[in-house]
Amino acid sequence: MINPNDPGLKSWVAVAAHSDFPIQNLPFGIFRPQHQTPRAGVAIGDHVLDLHYLEGQGYFRNLNLPSGVFDRSRLNDFFALGKKTIRAVREQVSLLLRHDNSTLQAENIRKQVLHAMHDVEMLLPVRVPNYTDFYSSEEHATNVGSMFRDPKNALLPNWKYLPVGYHGRASSIVVSGTPVRRPRGQVKTDSEFPMFMSTHKLDFEVEMAFITCGETKLGHPIHTHEAEDHIAGFALFNDWSARDIQQWEYVPLGPFLGKNFASTLSPWIVTLDALEPFRVDGPEQNPHVLPYLAFEGKKNFDVVIETLLQPEGAEAVVVSRTNAKYLYWNVNQQLAHHTVNGCNIEVGDVYASGTISGPSPGSFGSLLELSWNGQKKLHMTDDTTRTFLLDGDTVTLHAYASRDGVRIGFGACSGKILPSL
Amino acid sequence: MINPNDPGLKSWVAVAAHSDFPIQNLPFGIFRPQHQTPRAGVAIGDHVLDLHYLEGQGYFRNLNLPSGVFDRSRLNDFFALGKKTIRAVREQVSLLLRHDNSTLQAENIRKQVLHAMHDVEMLLPVRVPNYTDFYSSEEHATNVGSMFRDPKNALLPNWKYLPVGYHGRASSIVVSGTPVRRPRGQVKTDSEFPMFMSTHKLDFEVEMAFITCGETKLGHPIHTHEAEDHIAGFALFNDWSARDIQQWEYVPLGPFLGKNFASTLSPWIVTLDALEPFRVDGPEQNPHVLPYLAFEGKKNFDVVIETLLQPEGAEAVVVSRTNAKYLYWNVNQQLAHHTVNGCNIEVGDVYASGTISGPSPGSFGSLLELSWNGQKKLHMTDDTTRTFLLDGDTVTLHAYASRDGVRIGFGACSGKILPSL
Repeated sequence: MINPNDPGLKSWVAVAAHSDFPIQNLPFGIFRPQHQTPRAGVAIGDHVLDLHYLEGQGYFRNLNLPSGVFDRSRLNDFFALGKKTIRAVREQVSLLLRHDNSTLQAENIRKQVLHAMHDVEMLLPVRVPNYTDFYSSEEHATNVGSMFRDPKNALLPNWKYLPVGYHGRASSIVVSGTPVRRPRGQVKTDSEFPMFMSTHKLDFEVEMAFITCGETKLGHPIHTHEAEDHIAGFALFNDWSARDIQQWEYVPLGPFLGKNFASTLSPWIVTLDALEPFRVDGPEQNPHVLPYLAFEGKKNFDVVIETLLQPEGAEAVVVSRTNAKYLYWNVNQQLAHHTVNGCNIEVGDVYASGTISGPSPGSFGSLLELSWNGQKKLHMTDDTTRTFLLDGDTVTLHAYASRDGVRIGFGACSGKILPSL
Repeated sequence: MINPNDPGLKSWVAVAAHSDFPIQNLPFGIFRPQHQTPRAGVAIGDHVLDLHYLEGQGYFRNLNLPSGVFDRSRLNDFFALGKKTIRAVREQVSLLLRHDNSTLQAENIRKQVLHAMHDVEMLLPVRVPNYTDFYSSEEHATNVGSMFRDPKNALLPNWKYLPVGYHGRASSIVVSGTPVRRPRGQVKTDSEFPMFMSTHKLDFEVEMAFITCGETKLGHPIHTHEAEDHIAGFALFNDWSARDIQQWEYVPLGPFLGKNFASTLSPWIVTLDALEPFRVDGPEQNPHVLPYLAFEGKKNFDVVIETLLQPEGAEAVVVSRTNAKYLYWNVNQQLAHHTVNGCNIEVGDVYASGTISGPSPGSFGSLLELSWNGQKKLHMTDDTTRTFLLDGDTVTLHAYASRDGVRIGFGACSGKILPSL
């Protein structure tokens, strides 16, 4: 029996002790080797395994993959093959990378199939046909409601009955490492009229996103028990936000220009399979959910997420340490709710969790909450302080699940703030 | 000089007096002839001109189009060539269709290049990477605000300062003729808890949508004076809405499942060039807009839009007659606002106007307004009444601009309501 999650597995590729990418992980991404075209790869230690090369050499022949399916600049065509095929490829890669498998270890093959990570460029892993952002952290929704409405009735009446979500902008989702230009827009301060200016309240939002590997027909809902068949895996997601622009525009139709200037996705899609050992129960749901949102089993994941804020030329500070397990609504419920009216999904869709905040102040997932809308200053290593982001700041999310000496990491989700044009 | 809008132009293809598609129109679409693959075409009278055939035969040789650009199931690759190329193709088609041009009139060519409309299937004209819905009709926003908030302060504070908009769902945009399944979802009535049910308040929304023919880089705004360079043309758009689902879910992040079960787009994209003779001034904008929203010239279009409601097995009734000229915010302002924060656009994006209502009750663009949220009954030809849509009802939008004996029509934007699963 193949168990690619076995903590005892070792690879012949050297993997450092605290690497995000041991043989138990094997996430998928798109990379461009120097002087070559973009292609699909799998992260292993400090290297990227070239799936296009492997497929061309016949190493996946038993899986009957379409020829050239990894010779693409996005993973969509691969993911369209469905969950079983994605799983089979990960299992095959696991076999090929095991310490006792010599198939790829000969120097001439090894040179072709393994690329040092620092020599390749990581690209956006999927073309994103649709992007939805949920609002599934009770602590985050409570914090926002306390700040802007009434601390005693911080959660709106619908919040515990349905996973609130809204449609975001797909075109401005960028891969980790892409700089983010400080947006300009209308801001209404104490003056009588709104003014056009660069945002003064630029923020990050710590989120996890799941990426779909199936498509459904319009009119056909996905049930909670089958939702995971449509989910390839997770990536980290930073939903940059301009709080002052958002504040003026968002009533009644929701956030728009305060969000759609950029969202950053991490390049590696960590499979649901790799996260299997890290399932935990989510928060108790009270009141009981409607039948279409009911589910069985452990649907949350114990994934620590750390956020680092690095001023230009200074050391980074960890400003937030939270966990995906805090999410009130799970991904099965999110997908079931999203499609219960017949809305269809497509391959490569990105569904983000919404800001993940935990119960303690150090676990809040945005500067809005960490600085309590500017009232509290965060101290940086260069003796400056922050309430919101300054030009030159770099925000980096890291995440990992860890147990039995195995660490399933997500790689970095990072972006640096450039001044307005 | 070529003027494809000249009212005196006639085609050798027979065009009925009240046809939507005289030689002055020449809109683009995607059609599938019987037993053939989808391809791009131009509407002329009751026929579709086969652009793929023309290109293959070298009739566009002088334009240096990429080979096979019309041999596609969507117009995106063609639109990606940009406004000048789209214009040049329309002008070339205009020349080929003029009554005194014999190039295509030989029976053997004519049989290949012209398809009877009733013999072909019309497909969704573009793959839609992003869809945004604005809220640009003052009368509509005022009606909604009066119904659900305060008639004396019907417009929210931001409404006259920026073209309010939100992101919609791209995956569920369907072409005219596609049936629409009545959605189910959470509804909160007078009971203590929300219930899961089929919507009781299924509605249409009369909108125009513009489709983009260019892409921009993230971080680079589009100015009002250059916005039209990125717009290929317009189509009709019905943003079906479930008012009861929407009412329970939409605070604070905007409409979601109340909208994303389906939106219907008409199959023909009427070019901005064809609408050139129908430019009019829009409503006076007071207060003055911020400089980035300022514009020069006539940016509204005098386009009549009629909505027909047809109960199953009965005659249709015109329930609304409105006009695109009523829109407070024009497309140049919408695109400038959308991108002023750096948000990028892609080829084939759909930007809808929001419901277009005029000043009189008969010109309201939704049943919500026409029935004043269910208080007023609309009479059908079969002696039934409507406040919202019933199963079996068909809603069809028609639109046209008309002057000097020329009628630039949009074709039908139609959908029939199927019962919930």
